[in-house]
Amino acid sequence: VILPRGSAALPTGLSKHRIEALADGIFAVAMTLLVLDIKMPESVTYATNADVWRRLAGLEHAVASYVISFFMLSVYWIGHHVQFHFIERADRGLLWINLYLLLCICLVPFTTDLVGDNVHLHAPALLYGTNLLLIAAAFFGQLAYLQRHRHLTAPDFGHVLGALRRRVRFLAFLPLVSMAMAFYSPRLALYLYLSLPLLSLIPSRFNRLPAPHAHGQEDRS
Amino acid sequence: VILPRGSAALPTGLSKHRIEALADGIFAVAMTLLVLDIKMPESVTYATNADVWRRLAGLEHAVASYVISFFMLSVYWIGHHVQFHFIERADRGLLWINLYLLLCICLVPFTTDLVGDNVHLHAPALLYGTNLLLIAAAFFGQLAYLQRHRHLTAPDFGHVLGALRRRVRFLAFLPLVSMAMAFYSPRLALYLYLSLPLLSLIPSRFNRLPAPHAHGQEDRS
Amino acid sequence: VILPRGSAALPTGLSKHRIEALADGIFAVAMTLLVLDIKMPESVTYATNADVWRRLAGLEHAVASYVISFFMLSVYWIGHHVQFHFIERADRGLLWINLYLLLCICLVPFTTDLVGDNVHLHAPALLYGTNLLLIAAAFFGQLAYLQRHRHLTAPDFGHVLGALRRRVRFLAFLPLVSMAMAFYSPRLALYLYLSLPLLSLIPSRFNRLPAPHAHGQEDRS
Amino acid sequence: VILPRGSAALPTGLSKHRIEALADGIFAVAMTLLVLDIKMPESVTYATNADVWRRLAGLEHAVASYVISFFMLSVYWIGHHVQFHFIERADRGLLWINLYLLLCICLVPFTTDLVGDNVHLHAPALLYGTNLLLIAAAFFGQLAYLQRHRHLTAPDFGHVLGALRRRVRFLAFLPLVSMAMAFYSPRLALYLYLSLPLLSLIPSRFNRLPAPHAHGQEDRS
Repeated sequence: VILPRGSAALPTGLSKHRIEALADGIFAVAMTLLVLDIKMPESVTYATNADVWRRLAGLEHAVASYVISFFMLSVYWIGHHVQFHFIERADRGLLWINLYLLLCICLVPFTTDLVGDNVHLHAPALLYGTNLLLIAAAFFGQLAYLQRHRHLTAPDFGHVLGALRRRVRFLAFLPLVSMAMAFYSPRLALYLYLSLPLLSLIPSRFNRLPAPHAHGQEDRS
Repeated sequence: VILPRGSAALPTGLSKHRIEALADGIFAVAMTLLVLDIKMPESVTYATNADVWRRLAGLEHAVASYVISFFMLSVYWIGHHVQFHFIERADRGLLWINLYLLLCICLVPFTTDLVGDNVHLHAPALLYGTNLLLIAAAFFGQLAYLQRHRHLTAPDFGHVLGALRRRVRFLAFLPLVSMAMAFYSPRLALYLYLSLPLLSLIPSRFNRLPAPHAHGQEDRS
Repeated sequence: VILPRGSAALPTGLSKHRIEALADGIFAVAMTLLVLDIKMPESVTYATNADVWRRLAGLEHAVASYVISFFMLSVYWIGHHVQFHFIERADRGLLWINLYLLLCICLVPFTTDLVGDNVHLHAPALLYGTNLLLIAAAFFGQLAYLQRHRHLTAPDFGHVLGALRRRVRFLAFLPLVSMAMAFYSPRLALYLYLSLPLLSLIPSRFNRLPAPHAHGQEDRS
Repeated sequence: VILPRGSAALPTGLSKHRIEALADGIFAVAMTLLVLDIKMPESVTYATNADVWRRLAGLEHAVASYVISFFMLSVYWIGHHVQFHFIERADRGLLWINLYLLLCICLVPFTTDLVGDNVHLHAPALLYGTNLLLIAAAFFGQLAYLQRHRHLTAPDFGHVLGALRRRVRFLAFLPLVSMAMAFYSPRLALYLYLSLPLLSLIPSRFNRLPAPHAHGQEDRS
């Protein structure tokens, strides 16, 4: 019997594709479940068009929290995609960090629902912010883990680590501001999150990632 | 630290497979959730067979809107598949266009439900049409983005761009006609959508796409 | 501009992987949704252990229809897997046949729920049988389509076509027998489906498929 | 017509990727559905922040059972990932073992819900333990099947078989202890499961797997 190489002791060559597939699946289901929160009362038949428009107007906060959570999940999914772009293989530690991340992702439809129905209270806003902070912690944890386990990463990971970390720091900063603001106005605290996707559309120091060298050259050939 | 190549500043070699996987997942969940809209009242035990048939007959519009939405999502999924056939890599802009598309796809079960339960009103038909127009806009946006970022596409993208654009134009034309018709008869406006899948089965100028060269030759060898 | 090769006029090299991914996603969601049908009344807290056991005993038909539908979906998924093993590329026609198949697959949780709650009536059993017949028709259609479009298949498709067709014929035969039996006893008609997974475990002329040559040799090298 | 090689008579080269994709999809949906069990009453608008906190405190067991089931599913998913790391191709028998495993995985949200709502009774704890035992049986069955069908496995499967089997034995041991404990305290029986993920974080003889040789060398090159 061949003994493990050290205390880590797991197949070093575990493919990263299955954790990507599980993550994509969970993001897909969580994003689709979000919309269930804005569902009208089931199988209601309305009498007039005005009733429909009035009911839709009453869904403003539900729709807003849906759009915001969808964009937050989009930001996290892109973040996951970009971090895994620089990962070449997985080990048990990396899998567990990702499963913790996915646990927190699965909670987003729940906290979103709570915020959307209670935009007049700060407690749901605090809970929502905590959920997002736990997600940011997972991304921090993954970067820290990769830094200490460089054999899992692509050679150019070192060049982008700083940029990736600045980005995650911003992901943690926003919920903190929003949670503080929730004591003043829970509604403003909710809409503040919209600044994140907007910001990430603008090229800034937060989303400036050096192009990976190995991959980049491969593309040009 | 290596600086980004320009203002776009993201890994140029981001694989397109994960956005395909996320899209396939969201389409799969949205398509399966559609059927929840035609669910009978939960755990009802019927007294006679006649009761079952009568109840099913009462579901006519729910079943019709289910079938129509499933076919619309099928048309969009095939459109996504064909457009990505000519894409070779992704960047942040392309990811965001796709996430906007998926946001609109996730809303389809919601607007379908509203239409299926209220086939006597034009307001749900307008909402449904708007949802489909927003989807068509995403496809337009993707084509426009790819045209300006040719390094993301396969070399034969230029040859099929015209055909792809004609097809998307038709995707936008149909909801406009249906929305206009909704003021006259919401029911007719709903059934009009059935013409799209039917049309796409008939070879016409709308679905005539030149065979991609690189791939085509590969296939023949 | 390069013109399409004929009236079919679609990229001939469309990859088969995305339709496999969509199918796997829809099968996964449909299989998981099945279990929602046996859910106990939501968030009920029972007073005694005896209450729990009694409630569970009352779920017999719901559990039976869950297990049967899960196995039927398993049989279909394996059938899809085996047929696609001999497919090398996709075209628009093949995509549409598969989307029709997936439309019928998505209906299974709905008809299963109806059967599980009304095991004393033949109407739900007829509806369930019809659903399964529509699925068998999709598999027949796919084989017929592949026979007329051999450029989509692996070279050894011709050798297995007979065996694949016999298998699908059996998939259509079983619901017909079950539907006839439903007029005599809907309960027996339900349990009859259990014979299919059992039969497919026994090596018989129905599941005897020649090993594909090209792949087989590749495996041995 | 070429005849099958033996009584097994199925394409020997069936790819393992589709069963991995189906499993990832089902795990993803099951994990996300778990959170539905801790959903607050739908669309409730609370009057004060204190109401929200009080309601959340009342969800303690629902949240605990959510976290525990998510971790159990994570342990199973990692186990599936690791076992499939040593599998190179699939046959019909392996597919059926996996579909049986997935049937049991899909039941986890149901039994979790029952446990979370009835932490004062031992009947739900017994049911939950049985569910987990049925899952452990699937993993045992897969190892036994692979041992008798070595042509499906990677060459180094023999070296890790002992370690894999010890791990599965522990997966079966824990529910047995928990079920015995349920007669004394159902609550303790529930929290006992938390020891499994904790244990799997500690490198021990249970999670010490030799690195696969072929893959390992490939990684180093």
